[in-house]
Amino acid sequence: MPPFSRRTFMAQMGRAVGASLTLPPLSAMAQQRANNVDKRKVNIALCGLGRYANVLKAGIAASNYCHLAGIITGTPAKATQWMTEFNIPHKNSYTYQTFDQIIHNPAIDLVYITLPNGLHKEFTLRAAKAGKHVIVEKPMAFTPQDCQQMIDACQQAGVQLAVGYRLHYDPHHIELKRLGQHKVFGQVRLIEASLGYRLAGIPPDDWHLKKALAGGGPLMNLGVYCVQSARYVLGEEPLAVTAQFGPVTMPDLFREVEENITWQLYFPSGAICTSSCTSNCSIDRFYASADEGYFELEPALSYGPFKGRSSQGAFDFPVVNQQAAQLDDIAQHILSKKALPSHIAGEEGRRDMRVIEGIYRAATTGQKVNLV
Amino acid sequence: MPPFSRRTFMAQMGRAVGASLTLPPLSAMAQQRANNVDKRKVNIALCGLGRYANVLKAGIAASNYCHLAGIITGTPAKATQWMTEFNIPHKNSYTYQTFDQIIHNPAIDLVYITLPNGLHKEFTLRAAKAGKHVIVEKPMAFTPQDCQQMIDACQQAGVQLAVGYRLHYDPHHIELKRLGQHKVFGQVRLIEASLGYRLAGIPPDDWHLKKALAGGGPLMNLGVYCVQSARYVLGEEPLAVTAQFGPVTMPDLFREVEENITWQLYFPSGAICTSSCTSNCSIDRFYASADEGYFELEPALSYGPFKGRSSQGAFDFPVVNQQAAQLDDIAQHILSKKALPSHIAGEEGRRDMRVIEGIYRAATTGQKVNLV
Repeated sequence: MPPFSRRTFMAQMGRAVGASLTLPPLSAMAQQRANNVDKRKVNIALCGLGRYANVLKAGIAASNYCHLAGIITGTPAKATQWMTEFNIPHKNSYTYQTFDQIIHNPAIDLVYITLPNGLHKEFTLRAAKAGKHVIVEKPMAFTPQDCQQMIDACQQAGVQLAVGYRLHYDPHHIELKRLGQHKVFGQVRLIEASLGYRLAGIPPDDWHLKKALAGGGPLMNLGVYCVQSARYVLGEEPLAVTAQFGPVTMPDLFREVEENITWQLYFPSGAICTSSCTSNCSIDRFYASADEGYFELEPALSYGPFKGRSSQGAFDFPVVNQQAAQLDDIAQHILSKKALPSHIAGEEGRRDMRVIEGIYRAATTGQKVNLV
Repeated sequence: MPPFSRRTFMAQMGRAVGASLTLPPLSAMAQQRANNVDKRKVNIALCGLGRYANVLKAGIAASNYCHLAGIITGTPAKATQWMTEFNIPHKNSYTYQTFDQIIHNPAIDLVYITLPNGLHKEFTLRAAKAGKHVIVEKPMAFTPQDCQQMIDACQQAGVQLAVGYRLHYDPHHIELKRLGQHKVFGQVRLIEASLGYRLAGIPPDDWHLKKALAGGGPLMNLGVYCVQSARYVLGEEPLAVTAQFGPVTMPDLFREVEENITWQLYFPSGAICTSSCTSNCSIDRFYASADEGYFELEPALSYGPFKGRSSQGAFDFPVVNQQAAQLDDIAQHILSKKALPSHIAGEEGRRDMRVIEGIYRAATTGQKVNLV
């Protein structure tokens, strides 16, 4: 290792800015590139080539500011396939063992982590150490403390950290936020937000069923969408939560994680959000009732296309590629050296995990859990 | 009182049939009329001329087998108005004090009780003593024990007892039952059923806000529709319930009864139903997710008109007068001396009150309450 390595440099940068409120300066490499912002794209390496990576590749292809430049995978056949399909050079293809060498690869700006949940923290820390910006899929990690470690690591490394909160880029959800936060129909009183997929045919060894890799069942995998929608429609943080585990109808599959769960969030305004997340059936709906009207989506929280209406009539918004819009916004912020919008930054992921941790505690203890 | 009064006769009839499984024979008067079934109608006296009586009068007018023959009210002005509007003779108009004299009035066959909830039990018992069939609005009473007393009193008096469960007569709900119970889309796993109306402008002395008259808040007034829909879609009785009172946002109004409540019912098949009932906003929706599809209504549980769809497409059912259809079915059973269908009989009301009592206990204690 050279006496003044990139890693050492980044660590010193991090210490230099400390807990400053302004975004730490970009790395020397990024600084250099920032002089030519308009002409370049953010070069992304996808870390974990599972189901969601296949959704993201279309998003990257449809984006204006992102380029699929590299891959990290443990499966040689996938590596060959993706390198061929996207004309990725061998030098930009990593295994989980060789991943840390990415620190020496200026052709990669950002690592998008779509690994099983249980690996989010480790690979975020490793990507930050390698001086790469990070987008990590939800759930960001298993605990707010782990989220904070990831935030701190990225800040110290002078890289940006985003959570893959795609819904913020769908016009239907932007409208939900406007209707709720601007009180277009008055104060929102009751939200119902639920999401579920039937996993009856899933192989019993799928990582979604393993506590160590998934962190939990549908609450961990899907719950954040319900929690987020309530938080951003109300523009408030929940004060308390009650929650209930549902019965296990597929005991051969759900040995380690919950099969379904219901919960109720209590907000400072007096608004409530009730939600179900389940792995034994499909559900995908959002409804908000306010003093002088309502608004709703169904489908609501999946990849869309969404269908919505309010007391004033049906929504008429275009279908967008959520992933492309999300990637382009993140890329534009990175290219112009601006801090990421707060609704997709690591801190937002930490807030969500605080709520999700509270939901699990409430369901486990049967007690109402205060979140403040 | 004559030595062998109608009341004495009815009481003896009741004792004679005891706990027999067959319906007790109709009273002598009804027997006599039964010889001429096709040519006559059931003569109804409406007991309590409030908001719902005004809905029911349209239902009676639209029915084929019912006639609005009498009234019971504590308000002289209402008596005058209704007698004029419906050509009701003075002899068929009662106050709550003179009500028991209805025993001597062969022009009244049935008393439809739309009084505040807290009076349902008393007036059912009094109507039964007077030898009149009874339809009592929901909630049937405040406890399953009170419901049982009402059932017993009507059986002993040889009169029929129905609960005003109008939704069983709407084709949308008949379809929900078919889809759920016949497992058209496989086993139903999750139901969301919620109903609420915003009562912000209600006078603080309205009976709906008084514990003694209302028995509770929106759970008591509206909750039975959510509970029923889950029960009849699944064709099962819940095993257990968890429940939560929501915050009070209108403390000037909601001093005695809950402003809103959420609960979760757990059924033997493993299905769950989550519900909200509220007095601080409007909500009116039903959704059922099954293994191979879904079905839903919105509006769902109010007076309609309903709008529904399933994974196979939009429902296309006529708008019916729920009250007229309900009244005609009850009337036809009474006229032909058949026991009422089980889904609207008193026993069904008792089952619902058992669940509602459990919901209140779960919300009050914070504990899961077993219902078996």
